[in-house]
Amino acid sequence: MPSIDLNCDLGESFGAYTIGMDSAVIPYITSANVACGYHAGDPLVMQKTVAACKKNDVHIGAHPGYPDLMGFGRRNIAATPAEVKAYIQYQVGALSAFCTAAGVPLCHVKPHGAMYNMAAKDEALARAVCEGILEVNPKLTLLALSGSAMVRAAHETGLPVKNEVFADRGYQADGTLVPRSRPGAMITDEDEAIARVIRMAKEGVVRSVDGVDVPLTADSVCVHGDGEKALAFVQRIRAALTDAGIEVKAL
Amino acid sequence: MPSIDLNCDLGESFGAYTIGMDSAVIPYITSANVACGYHAGDPLVMQKTVAACKKNDVHIGAHPGYPDLMGFGRRNIAATPAEVKAYIQYQVGALSAFCTAAGVPLCHVKPHGAMYNMAAKDEALARAVCEGILEVNPKLTLLALSGSAMVRAAHETGLPVKNEVFADRGYQADGTLVPRSRPGAMITDEDEAIARVIRMAKEGVVRSVDGVDVPLTADSVCVHGDGEKALAFVQRIRAALTDAGIEVKAL
Amino acid sequence: MPSIDLNCDLGESFGAYTIGMDSAVIPYITSANVACGYHAGDPLVMQKTVAACKKNDVHIGAHPGYPDLMGFGRRNIAATPAEVKAYIQYQVGALSAFCTAAGVPLCHVKPHGAMYNMAAKDEALARAVCEGILEVNPKLTLLALSGSAMVRAAHETGLPVKNEVFADRGYQADGTLVPRSRPGAMITDEDEAIARVIRMAKEGVVRSVDGVDVPLTADSVCVHGDGEKALAFVQRIRAALTDAGIEVKAL
Amino acid sequence: MPSIDLNCDLGESFGAYTIGMDSAVIPYITSANVACGYHAGDPLVMQKTVAACKKNDVHIGAHPGYPDLMGFGRRNIAATPAEVKAYIQYQVGALSAFCTAAGVPLCHVKPHGAMYNMAAKDEALARAVCEGILEVNPKLTLLALSGSAMVRAAHETGLPVKNEVFADRGYQADGTLVPRSRPGAMITDEDEAIARVIRMAKEGVVRSVDGVDVPLTADSVCVHGDGEKALAFVQRIRAALTDAGIEVKAL
Repeated sequence: MPSIDLNCDLGESFGAYTIGMDSAVIPYITSANVACGYHAGDPLVMQKTVAACKKNDVHIGAHPGYPDLMGFGRRNIAATPAEVKAYIQYQVGALSAFCTAAGVPLCHVKPHGAMYNMAAKDEALARAVCEGILEVNPKLTLLALSGSAMVRAAHETGLPVKNEVFADRGYQADGTLVPRSRPGAMITDEDEAIARVIRMAKEGVVRSVDGVDVPLTADSVCVHGDGEKALAFVQRIRAALTDAGIEVKAL
Repeated sequence: MPSIDLNCDLGESFGAYTIGMDSAVIPYITSANVACGYHAGDPLVMQKTVAACKKNDVHIGAHPGYPDLMGFGRRNIAATPAEVKAYIQYQVGALSAFCTAAGVPLCHVKPHGAMYNMAAKDEALARAVCEGILEVNPKLTLLALSGSAMVRAAHETGLPVKNEVFADRGYQADGTLVPRSRPGAMITDEDEAIARVIRMAKEGVVRSVDGVDVPLTADSVCVHGDGEKALAFVQRIRAALTDAGIEVKAL
Repeated sequence: MPSIDLNCDLGESFGAYTIGMDSAVIPYITSANVACGYHAGDPLVMQKTVAACKKNDVHIGAHPGYPDLMGFGRRNIAATPAEVKAYIQYQVGALSAFCTAAGVPLCHVKPHGAMYNMAAKDEALARAVCEGILEVNPKLTLLALSGSAMVRAAHETGLPVKNEVFADRGYQADGTLVPRSRPGAMITDEDEAIARVIRMAKEGVVRSVDGVDVPLTADSVCVHGDGEKALAFVQRIRAALTDAGIEVKAL
Repeated sequence: MPSIDLNCDLGESFGAYTIGMDSAVIPYITSANVACGYHAGDPLVMQKTVAACKKNDVHIGAHPGYPDLMGFGRRNIAATPAEVKAYIQYQVGALSAFCTAAGVPLCHVKPHGAMYNMAAKDEALARAVCEGILEVNPKLTLLALSGSAMVRAAHETGLPVKNEVFADRGYQADGTLVPRSRPGAMITDEDEAIARVIRMAKEGVVRSVDGVDVPLTADSVCVHGDGEKALAFVQRIRAALTDAGIEVKAL
């Protein structure tokens, strides 16, 4: 039976600031990427998010980002691979402490925002991310963009890795995402988006923007819980996957 | 043979900013309290400091503080016990990652500055500190002001604890420090300071500001490496302790 | 004709984080206290908030706070008067730039949260706040808790000052607020709250928790825009004040 | 009589952290670029630096940078022109307040580190910097890399601008700096560096890395006060300029 993981970024609130409908989305997902205090999240939020994941049997992953709260970790920063490696270790360690305190394992690591995007293309950054994780806990799984430099670096360094796909993004013939600046970057029709994910999970292919079928490994789909519409989509995609005979389960 | 630990705050540099003469002082100490990024320190500095401790066979402890880089963690902040507990766990976890990556154990935790001073007096904060550490790693030793609320909280919660004494501070009849605002708060004569530490280590007593001998447990003395004078004192006190037949060794 | 100002904290969003329903509440208020980047707010938010105030003809004030984004400036910090003075000047200056760029005047300063509460009682802090403002722009008006140390410090230093009252707080016989820990601290009945404000504005008295009438100067009432209920109350109190023949106008 | 300004970055200390030998270098310079709290500096440091400039009759400029204390503002950040414009206004406003409080004028603005380098090449950023300054105070002078996009943007927007040259950097035939990654980027011989500055000031030309003479406007030379060697060089270059009949004076 084919299966897929539904992952969602959680724990992005900070102090008096709330982002995301964490408690509403958590029953529908199987893995959570928890912010670690650099681009979002704070110690109390991390603690509560870990507790909520434990209660809902959701696998916990670290979601480390650049130290840029003002930019929510979405802005490229010219940090060196050595800096990125240290940022990863710092944040993975911090979240690990809350997992240990709650008696639940930390399962995976998914870099956030600009760090994810930069390491998807930059070999040196990708390697720094993998080495950072390996040194702290070689059993952690890297959750990385399907077909990216991060997946290759994980294979090379021996770090367990799973491939992430996107329901709402177009793909190029080489399996990479269509850049947001080009036509076909976004799949705006929800039915089409769901059909694509089902095909990726069942057949391991996606129709590229050029009209060719591209082989792809779809271990996990990224979903969002930051609005009513996003939440409704999570519910729809989960039901559609189950109806299509695809088991929704954690990595 | 009586023994005592020499502990020093290390890893307080941040980005382009350097504080402390870490490499000069490290050969003379037995335990290092490493800043964890909240009041001082950053991921690269933590990594380098852990490496330097490993090379010099110095025991590594976490030195968590308030999130107040501008105030260097020295200003009282009205954080709740729940916040302090979460801050401790976050920072202990972060440093743990660098220890794991370097293949060395994390040995102790010593709260920094205002957090240390507030938790020395406030039972709820002291308990929050202990519970925070216990949940993350019950084998860690708390390094706390001799005779403080933190020592009591450690005993109550079952957390291993060691007593810290100060060479340059006066003591009151109840074993607590003379407040800095009162006469006798500081021991300015270096010879006297050293003689007091030797007596604390050998006899377990200190002469109070009122002239009475107060029983005290002296597991560790705090020394500083933030200037030429401080560095010279570390060398002197280490030699004097050895000459007095007191073994200088980690907790 | 008696008059009163309705002031509200605005511009508390930060980066990707939104707090407050600024655009909904702004048509009902006459003065805005704009966060300046220390406890809340960022440069883009400040710029947008100043533009919205200009468009709605709302007087702009600076709302400086402690450098504690994680605690939203609500936690007491043991900063020195010299530090508080410098924090005030930094933040007032920063907001002034956006006012100048938009071609609108900066009218007042109201310290935020813990800084407001601490300076309301501490003479040295109150003086530091006033001196900080005076040195930057002696025409700015301090908006301070009626009957507080800040009002006295403003009188002593020659800084223009206006008295702020609270609709939902109980008062003591000396004109100060009933501490939140004591009975009578909060006025939970909205009708009663509105009636009290009308009486403060018209007669200059408030009934204390002990049942005596206390003289009071009510230059401005603090209202909130951080929820549907708060927003509905602003609309109600504004209508009630107008109906009672009290002009709602800026300081 | 030809003249030149000697500018130096000052006020880069932060909290307990000290960078730079400000009091030693200040007697030898004519303009100071004062950090404004984003990449370096804090309110107390800004206040003290303004006071020191006033005492030494040194012209004060704002030195705004990216919000990246951990990277000291030296790392490229993909901030939008709108963000950069708002960051400039925030920081210029903050420093203005300390100048007003001290009764001295703010004279110029020189973006720091990565912001300076990025805006030297990126037309949109350069324009954002100029518009940000113009809206806050059109009398401020932009201090920008000679021959850069910032100089062009200043001319286009009507902002006063002065050209900065570097004693220790090689120039290309088009008047731009030799990138640090290429041979000839650095002038390591101090005598040669000084001779080049004298020629730039007197003749308005510099010998390029390719051996051709390039016309250049040398309004100000950047010097450093962050070490004994840097300090000695400032003293040497000042003396050499005077000996060569070049007046050292502020912009």
